[in-house]
Amino acid sequence: SYCLNDMILEKPHDCSWIRTIGPIKFKNEPPFTEKYFSQIVDHFNFNSMGNGTFNQRYLITEKYWDRKNGPIFFYTGNEGDIWDFALNSGFITELAEQQRALVIFAEHRYYGKSLPFGQESFNIPQVGLLTVEQALADFALLISQLKQELGASNCPVIVFGGSYGGMLSAYMRQRYPNLVAGALAASAPVLSTAGMGDPRQFFRDVTSDFEGYAPECSAAVRGAFQRVQDLAEHQAYDRLQSAFALCKKPSSPGDVRQLKGFLRNAFTLLAMLDYPYSTHFWGDMPAHPVKEPEAESASRKNNHSRASVASPQACTEIELCYESNNVTDMFPAMTFTPAERLAYCSKRWGVTPRPGWLQTQYWGDALSTASNIIYSNGDLDPWANGGVRTSLSPSVVAINITDGAHHLDLRGSNDADPASVISARKTEANLIAQWVAMERLRLK
Amino acid sequence: SYCLNDMILEKPHDCSWIRTIGPIKFKNEPPFTEKYFSQIVDHFNFNSMGNGTFNQRYLITEKYWDRKNGPIFFYTGNEGDIWDFALNSGFITELAEQQRALVIFAEHRYYGKSLPFGQESFNIPQVGLLTVEQALADFALLISQLKQELGASNCPVIVFGGSYGGMLSAYMRQRYPNLVAGALAASAPVLSTAGMGDPRQFFRDVTSDFEGYAPECSAAVRGAFQRVQDLAEHQAYDRLQSAFALCKKPSSPGDVRQLKGFLRNAFTLLAMLDYPYSTHFWGDMPAHPVKEPEAESASRKNNHSRASVASPQACTEIELCYESNNVTDMFPAMTFTPAERLAYCSKRWGVTPRPGWLQTQYWGDALSTASNIIYSNGDLDPWANGGVRTSLSPSVVAINITDGAHHLDLRGSNDADPASVISARKTEANLIAQWVAMERLRLK
Repeated sequence: SYCLNDMILEKPHDCSWIRTIGPIKFKNEPPFTEKYFSQIVDHFNFNSMGNGTFNQRYLITEKYWDRKNGPIFFYTGNEGDIWDFALNSGFITELAEQQRALVIFAEHRYYGKSLPFGQESFNIPQVGLLTVEQALADFALLISQLKQELGASNCPVIVFGGSYGGMLSAYMRQRYPNLVAGALAASAPVLSTAGMGDPRQFFRDVTSDFEGYAPECSAAVRGAFQRVQDLAEHQAYDRLQSAFALCKKPSSPGDVRQLKGFLRNAFTLLAMLDYPYSTHFWGDMPAHPVKEPEAESASRKNNHSRASVASPQACTEIELCYESNNVTDMFPAMTFTPAERLAYCSKRWGVTPRPGWLQTQYWGDALSTASNIIYSNGDLDPWANGGVRTSLSPSVVAINITDGAHHLDLRGSNDADPASVISARKTEANLIAQWVAMERLRLK
Repeated sequence: SYCLNDMILEKPHDCSWIRTIGPIKFKNEPPFTEKYFSQIVDHFNFNSMGNGTFNQRYLITEKYWDRKNGPIFFYTGNEGDIWDFALNSGFITELAEQQRALVIFAEHRYYGKSLPFGQESFNIPQVGLLTVEQALADFALLISQLKQELGASNCPVIVFGGSYGGMLSAYMRQRYPNLVAGALAASAPVLSTAGMGDPRQFFRDVTSDFEGYAPECSAAVRGAFQRVQDLAEHQAYDRLQSAFALCKKPSSPGDVRQLKGFLRNAFTLLAMLDYPYSTHFWGDMPAHPVKEPEAESASRKNNHSRASVASPQACTEIELCYESNNVTDMFPAMTFTPAERLAYCSKRWGVTPRPGWLQTQYWGDALSTASNIIYSNGDLDPWANGGVRTSLSPSVVAINITDGAHHLDLRGSNDADPASVISARKTEANLIAQWVAMERLRLK
């Protein structure tokens, strides 16, 4: 098994073969106000270095809110600047307009501007408080205090999230049903990240995406990786450097391995972000990038901070040990043993991975015990089959989006939307309205 | 409001007016083996001083277990030496014999021999990791690893606990339904300790117990406290010292206040432990001590460690701010402001109380969202009305025991048992058998 190199590898992100683009412009910016909340640094130790507080950023808009009857829509931020998610989750503001909701996007600790120890946050030992449990407790405290401050104690709260943020939103409903009436967990790989599933699934599904467009595509990719390997074996490092415009000439098998991992990751991103129109979520991305990868490679935004900070999470709780093997997928066989993971993680972050921890903490094989959770997934998304694909109970519901990529349903409506995502959003809106109505009864 | 002085006051525990008795003998000792588990010190920080492990004690017996079909009965230890609970919870072993269960009693971190930092455990900052969340994570890890080691992955787990231990068992089912099929939470004041309820309830109910035996009783107690007050006002400290056999002569209003708090606490214990036969749970206790307090005061065991270590929990998460006012109860008016609590807690333990935290963490007003929890309470117990007294759903069930004191139902059967506790135990046994059967289907 090989840990997703987006989480593990950092070096190539500095390189110029991905040309960094200028500041991104968004049309129809939602009307958020940026605020800060005085958050507890360590919720689970009363005498720690984390006895203090830090400023957690959140975005808020009351524009659509019916203060008397409207719910609260709360996005559980994931690994990145909270503006990135707020500007790429138009479904939430559209739904807020329909259902007259207050909207909050809360930033995840250690990302964006929500740094528990300022610039020291990524040092050892300060980085150790980057855990799922601490992040959930942040959201819980923020929700309960904002409800008080806003006089909104009778307003039902619905949480939303995509990808890792979707995991967090499902966990919030499991963990805090007193605060959260329901969760839309979009493209949340809750099973595979807990080590439950087939480690070959991920890269097999990336491969399927490319085969779906053109059967000859995967053969071409295999050939290209073989060519890289041939050049490496002949130590034609100059050729490799010029082919990929690398800043530094590769000089060892380790460098070549890292290059291959990074290339594998580029194909993975194309599959994940295979939206039917051009996007700016993870750098500028053309419509259907799986069809047109050249445009992408020229414009992918350098997203250094997201990848590097996420790597301590992959080092501790989140299990991203997916393998490619060149048999069930089109990529070179790349393994990453638990011993290698441990060595990397303890050297880089001073931490020890805890296999099985996420499964123990977040209900493992008993997800059906929860209620009021939607697990939505796009069939084009390689993360989809690491999540919940069939409904587990009348209120733990799977929604599968035939032509959807990574949490397409969270994006705002678009003329190019396939029928499947339009239908999915309608089902989601109806379920959320039901949850809100039920919770309103409970809170009264 | 005045915090229960059992949790706050420590000084009088050294005093000889309560004569310490010799080692306690138990008949029919259950056949437990004492073992230790290598437990994680800090579950929620990957780089802390708690990166290491400590030995958590647990007691185990396979004597009754049908390895193929039998469940696991797991006691979630509370504030004390785990043997105290194992030797005073005969219902669990009796039920294990009936239902052929493996029995485990797990000790709570920071109590008994389960000290995360050895003799340094009660220093600042080491004591800061004494939190409910850490204790629950200990139990979760212990359950999941013991199930693996014992080849018992298909065995349903039922958790049991009394008092604070009962709170923990309810929380375990809420928090870890993947590991725990159901919980018997006996005499668990889940509402009052979360700051939800009337702060006058506790001492009012202590008073009712005494009035129930003889209406003149509460008047006598009021008179006695008035006498103490009169002596104090005349600075007759010699008389106070000899009357209560105090080690040191009181010398200030503060000392007198502490004495009054300690006396109030003695009456409280008599009400809590008002069992129909003599017990050894909290020192030697005659049958119906509320009827015969003199015998008790002569023999109450000095239980210093339990009270003093529990005080950091009352200083952080557990809200024990119950007030007496001499109007709705028979005790002197004693208040303890949040400012006084903060001052004591920060000076003594270097911690800051977090009001509302328990309510946020453990489902506050949404306890009905859970499933498979029994809240049992005895009508004689002053803690009872701080718990759940009416069923919240078909599977979140309240059982009220007319003649029961503090978790009488957890004790082994006795000829003196009232019909109400016999009936309660039958209902509990039936519900537990149903949960086990359901969980067995899920795990297969």
